[in-house]
Amino acid sequence: MSMFPAATYQQRRAALLARLRDAGARGLVLLPGHVDSPMNYRDNAYDFRQDSSFLYFCGLQQPELALLVDIDGGDATLHGDDIGIDHLVWTGPLPSVAERAAQSGIASTATRAQLAATLAAARAAGRPVHFLKPFRGESRLALSAWLGLADAQLDDAASRVLTLAVIALRAVKSTSEIAEIENALHVTRDLHHLAMRMSRAGVVEQEIVGAMEGLALKHGRRLAYPSIFTSRGEILHNHDHSVKLKGGELIVNDTGANSALGYASDITRTIPVGGRFDGLQAELYDLVLDAQTQAIAAVAPGVPYRDVHELACRVMVEGMKSLGFMHGDAAEAVQEGAHAIFFQCGTGHMMGLDVHDMEGLGEDDVGYGEGFVRSALFGHKSLRLARALRPGFVVTIEPGVYINRWLTERWKAEGRHAGFIDYAMFDKHADFGGIRIEDDILVTADGRRELGPHIARSRADVEAACAG
Amino acid sequence: MSMFPAATYQQRRAALLARLRDAGARGLVLLPGHVDSPMNYRDNAYDFRQDSSFLYFCGLQQPELALLVDIDGGDATLHGDDIGIDHLVWTGPLPSVAERAAQSGIASTATRAQLAATLAAARAAGRPVHFLKPFRGESRLALSAWLGLADAQLDDAASRVLTLAVIALRAVKSTSEIAEIENALHVTRDLHHLAMRMSRAGVVEQEIVGAMEGLALKHGRRLAYPSIFTSRGEILHNHDHSVKLKGGELIVNDTGANSALGYASDITRTIPVGGRFDGLQAELYDLVLDAQTQAIAAVAPGVPYRDVHELACRVMVEGMKSLGFMHGDAAEAVQEGAHAIFFQCGTGHMMGLDVHDMEGLGEDDVGYGEGFVRSALFGHKSLRLARALRPGFVVTIEPGVYINRWLTERWKAEGRHAGFIDYAMFDKHADFGGIRIEDDILVTADGRRELGPHIARSRADVEAACAG
Repeated sequence: MSMFPAATYQQRRAALLARLRDAGARGLVLLPGHVDSPMNYRDNAYDFRQDSSFLYFCGLQQPELALLVDIDGGDATLHGDDIGIDHLVWTGPLPSVAERAAQSGIASTATRAQLAATLAAARAAGRPVHFLKPFRGESRLALSAWLGLADAQLDDAASRVLTLAVIALRAVKSTSEIAEIENALHVTRDLHHLAMRMSRAGVVEQEIVGAMEGLALKHGRRLAYPSIFTSRGEILHNHDHSVKLKGGELIVNDTGANSALGYASDITRTIPVGGRFDGLQAELYDLVLDAQTQAIAAVAPGVPYRDVHELACRVMVEGMKSLGFMHGDAAEAVQEGAHAIFFQCGTGHMMGLDVHDMEGLGEDDVGYGEGFVRSALFGHKSLRLARALRPGFVVTIEPGVYINRWLTERWKAEGRHAGFIDYAMFDKHADFGGIRIEDDILVTADGRRELGPHIARSRADVEAACAG
Repeated sequence: MSMFPAATYQQRRAALLARLRDAGARGLVLLPGHVDSPMNYRDNAYDFRQDSSFLYFCGLQQPELALLVDIDGGDATLHGDDIGIDHLVWTGPLPSVAERAAQSGIASTATRAQLAATLAAARAAGRPVHFLKPFRGESRLALSAWLGLADAQLDDAASRVLTLAVIALRAVKSTSEIAEIENALHVTRDLHHLAMRMSRAGVVEQEIVGAMEGLALKHGRRLAYPSIFTSRGEILHNHDHSVKLKGGELIVNDTGANSALGYASDITRTIPVGGRFDGLQAELYDLVLDAQTQAIAAVAPGVPYRDVHELACRVMVEGMKSLGFMHGDAAEAVQEGAHAIFFQCGTGHMMGLDVHDMEGLGEDDVGYGEGFVRSALFGHKSLRLARALRPGFVVTIEPGVYINRWLTERWKAEGRHAGFIDYAMFDKHADFGGIRIEDDILVTADGRRELGPHIARSRADVEAACAG
């Protein structure tokens, strides 16, 4: 299993220790790796995915490991159990826990039973045990048992100082992490171009989704998240793939592969079935692409992502005005949330080892803070990232236009934002569907860099890629 | 989402009630469906797989549902929450809980909050709540909260009468369930024939595994279990796929797709890379196929599966004797467990909604009982099914020869079964790998039927399928 060099993990653990000590933390840091997630029963498990924070600090992609770091003494211990002969006939010989620890630059190892004993002794001695909020049931049960806490106490007992230190470190990507993301994007490019070639009338969505996932698997990769591939693009997270493509409709394809080391990629393209964007499709596509282009150009160190989001919204409102869907002052429409009639979500999010990076650690701690507070307004409240960008952040830029008939009906009945919205136009195009264009952007010292190889994006390029 | 007709689920629930009442049970039956299994964080989940017992009694393949049946009154209630407008922009309109309940023939619905209240009231009134042993962390946490039980108490508190009633019902497959399994086997045939065509020197295992899974996905199917596809066939559950195929080696391919309704299939074929079985490969292949053929012919109502297993073992020991690997009396060798030097596992298991059917409910309750007790001997102890077969059971028959160098070394050093085993032969062929041949067999009123379409199995057929 591929990893970064051991020194990378040693440096990351040293940086974590330094931050914790600077913050005055004492005691132990417990980072449990994942165990297998049962599908039908315990031994029929889903494809293993390591906990991303464990992966960041250890790099080991095997289940049933845990890292314990002594903040006061500074030493790290990898806990895990070696296999016996009975197990050997099922798995073959596996590296020992000590061999795995060495790959991660950890000199000390111990069993899982010893972990329980060490934690019990720490609790008895009144030493704090710092842990991150667990999100899998199995992790919650293990932490409850180790720490003598009820499940209902776990989230409050999770360590704030550890959470903020991990977020601060994981948020800034190194050169080798960027290389991993770009490696994932090379596979993702192939998936998107394959989907463009395959999107013909009469093909069932699942055939294309299966072909994309199969291609990722042939490279030994998993998808970073379940594909969204739908002619009902206005349904933002539509995972139904049973529909047959019809000529003339638009498909939103939001699909990204992982890298070998578990880094995500996250790309959306919108595909015209039959290979040509028609009149309104072309106009709305160019409008979304213009918003994306301007938003990407606005990405730079020090710029709050909320400004990037609001810029994308304003550009789209201006475009929607010129097409007769919206009225009034664009900036005002966005401030009041009227744009959410066609753009119900945020312009993007952090990306790294998770596609919504570190979402399990708390979306507000990842994307807000530093004076930024999440809006309560429908639309803006779904913005995952608001705070000022820094060099090394990787973010997605993914504006879109989604004509959602249920939302139109609801708002029209309420007369909501009637001064900004031409409901007759939204009614007229209730069957339009959706358009989204998404890319992954690195914040650099002096601006930004679009990551990965070119994936057909202009109308002309998408039409050419559809033609094969 | 496809389902059986509502009457099917009504009949199954009525049969469950009748069994529970016959056994004198009172109170409530709680069958919680699965919630999503988090991959990277809560909202980035694995492909949803419903709990198989919930699926059997309700047929609904959506998360966050629970069935509550009143044993005394007889009525069933489906608990779940309808979505609001905020959710609608992410998922589109979904059937209501009442509409889903109707598909399953359930007249009564209530919210998840009401489920908690109903269970609290039942506990206060001293009414028993029957539940099955949960195997996912999220299910364990929910049951603990609903029933006021610590996690450590759950397994003991699980209802034995319910467990046995569910096993008795799920063990016997109906005609429509058999049709589902055969439907899954049609996809599985295509996966195996694809793998045979692709297995050429220089191809990386993952390319073939990915192509198989991609083909299943294109049919809208998932694999019933993670594929085993390896030139190290002696490692029984080898999930590493990073190796390049070499001409002249054997590949064990253990792969099966699910049906649309979630039934498993489970097929193994052994593929010669390059398309031809050589001398010893051919001899051992025919030996395993002979054991499989004789074992399948022995499947019949009333026959203990343990007898089928021991027959397969004896046939293989006889063959291994003729090739010089074994000595002495075959029946005696099998009784003493000497055959486990080359066949470390059982001959097969039940199959249905789970590939090892109902393994989560307890392997011994599924496969033993009725006077059968699991052996403690290495080899025999891994037999999952021993008890007498009944019409409607679906079982796998999967004998194999696995030359495992670590086991050979260990046993040879101990002088174990030295009277039966020619260690020099095992040493000489330490690099041989493994052979397994597996099919899915229905026990009929008067014998057995091999399920599904023909999948190349004789040496000649496999060689022809490899040639394309």
